[in-house]
Amino acid sequence: MQVLHVGAIDIGGTKIAATVANAHGPLARITQATVKTGAPRAVGDQAVALLHAACEQAGIDCRSIKSVGVSSCGPFARIDGMLGLKTPNICGGLTEGTDLPNDWTIIPLEQVLREQFEHVVIENDCVAALFAERNFGSVRDEPDCVYVTWSTGIGFGLCVDGRILHGKHGNAGHAGHMLMSEQSEALCGCGNRGDLEALISGRSLGNRFGQSAPDLFAAARSGEPAAYAAVAHAAQWFGRALYNLAAILDTRVFVMGGSIWNYHGEWLLPLVQPEIERRLPALTQGVSIVPAALGGMVADVGALSLVMPADWMPRWRNTQPWALFAAE
Amino acid sequence: MQVLHVGAIDIGGTKIAATVANAHGPLARITQATVKTGAPRAVGDQAVALLHAACEQAGIDCRSIKSVGVSSCGPFARIDGMLGLKTPNICGGLTEGTDLPNDWTIIPLEQVLREQFEHVVIENDCVAALFAERNFGSVRDEPDCVYVTWSTGIGFGLCVDGRILHGKHGNAGHAGHMLMSEQSEALCGCGNRGDLEALISGRSLGNRFGQSAPDLFAAARSGEPAAYAAVAHAAQWFGRALYNLAAILDTRVFVMGGSIWNYHGEWLLPLVQPEIERRLPALTQGVSIVPAALGGMVADVGALSLVMPADWMPRWRNTQPWALFAAE
Repeated sequence: MQVLHVGAIDIGGTKIAATVANAHGPLARITQATVKTGAPRAVGDQAVALLHAACEQAGIDCRSIKSVGVSSCGPFARIDGMLGLKTPNICGGLTEGTDLPNDWTIIPLEQVLREQFEHVVIENDCVAALFAERNFGSVRDEPDCVYVTWSTGIGFGLCVDGRILHGKHGNAGHAGHMLMSEQSEALCGCGNRGDLEALISGRSLGNRFGQSAPDLFAAARSGEPAAYAAVAHAAQWFGRALYNLAAILDTRVFVMGGSIWNYHGEWLLPLVQPEIERRLPALTQGVSIVPAALGGMVADVGALSLVMPADWMPRWRNTQPWALFAAE
Repeated sequence: MQVLHVGAIDIGGTKIAATVANAHGPLARITQATVKTGAPRAVGDQAVALLHAACEQAGIDCRSIKSVGVSSCGPFARIDGMLGLKTPNICGGLTEGTDLPNDWTIIPLEQVLREQFEHVVIENDCVAALFAERNFGSVRDEPDCVYVTWSTGIGFGLCVDGRILHGKHGNAGHAGHMLMSEQSEALCGCGNRGDLEALISGRSLGNRFGQSAPDLFAAARSGEPAAYAAVAHAAQWFGRALYNLAAILDTRVFVMGGSIWNYHGEWLLPLVQPEIERRLPALTQGVSIVPAALGGMVADVGALSLVMPADWMPRWRNTQPWALFAAE
């Protein structure tokens, strides 16, 4: 049977987006603040309702959507064989002293979506972004590449030998929780001290330096010495983390997204690159760092690409139909 | 055409081993000190000569061997599309002030072997070991596992989603060169300070604590306080490295080899495990550490398994014919 429409959900700690698309491109996209009260299934119910609303806006019958791709913050765990979300940004029951208005420990996402849709594919948001960039963006058909987002948090999607990595529960790529420093007292939301997120995520930099990450970076770029020292040190840690991944995975290309890199990547690059290039030439020679191409639509397009028919892709590559939505 | 015999080469910094086998098991195995003088192709020529000698010992015609599997220390690089070895343990031209009696920068291994054999498959030694353990050993058919050797050096073979990782030049798994400490002055052979090998490889522990690694571990286990502190600290670093890999790859099982783990693994385990278990439960829950099953024959059996017909494997699993050679 010919597929006319597919749906996509992008679940973040702050907002949820639902998109519906046909062979020519996205038709409608609706976003809402992520629901954080009620029963644990509330997030899944919200996703379904948003998809219905997107269908209505696009003027299509939601029953024509059989397949839904999902990009979501993780980590994931299994409930009765189906993927659920154990994400400390939404589930209040995972961290002591949280300010979230619920006591959820896991969100039964796949189960709720499967009540309505025949075919559901759920990926970590950075993994979905890597699908988007490999299908339509900066690393088309590159077999050995890593997607990196440097933003409020830090996340990775990993591709080796032409295959995107999942791991035992679909949580491969949580390299933001790689331990980097034995000295730093910087605390991560996961409880680690001195992991990459604790050292340099936007949230952590904000907490540690008493101003928001955007303000800190602006001060650094205007030459304020303390801010410059903090940001230069963060860039070094970031470069050491990319080097570690290159040594572990023999990566060729890092494709970069997230608000910190999107705004400051060109300025940061000369601080980051030496931490890779001056080490172990057999692993690092020829490694490149390129910006992501899909911008604000990377998660949505990634989620769509998880379920879209292969014969839609050449047209999307040519016409880049997501660009109309990216400007929103 | 039916395959009657296959060959294997195991290349290390100290010795080379050649093995020939048929469907029932290994027939002969010959080892020699690795040649380090002459032309760069000398190592390849030695490997071919050893295979001929092993054939003679087994009483078979070497022309009956079309396929050779190779386990070798790395890292690798390409010469004219074929794999060569850039290994600082053998190539004297890679490190300033080396005591190696040659100025080789790369060994043209694949090219030399292909002059004699139709089919050559070369893998990093820890990758070959992982093939062995997944085919015949402790992690049979486990999709998400990592082979670890803790010995003179530290090496890893990585398997995610049922596929062993190679990366852009076959160097995935060089996690021994992952940066772990920003404080330590410990120097790795690769030039890094504070990477895992610099911190805890047998060679590095020996250099830093003024006694051989076996003596240091013996002193630690007999309760000598300084030695115990050094070894306990090393075990912590080791556990932090395994945790990092579990977070990056969502690994289920670590399968452990190498002389340090083979002799001291049971004693080390209670020092290593807490560094994994007390972190990020979504990634670390259920992660296990098991000893490798193939012992001293792991590289040879791994190299053989790279080229042996699939229908030999069930018999080898049942009869474990390498055990006769392991005792040598």
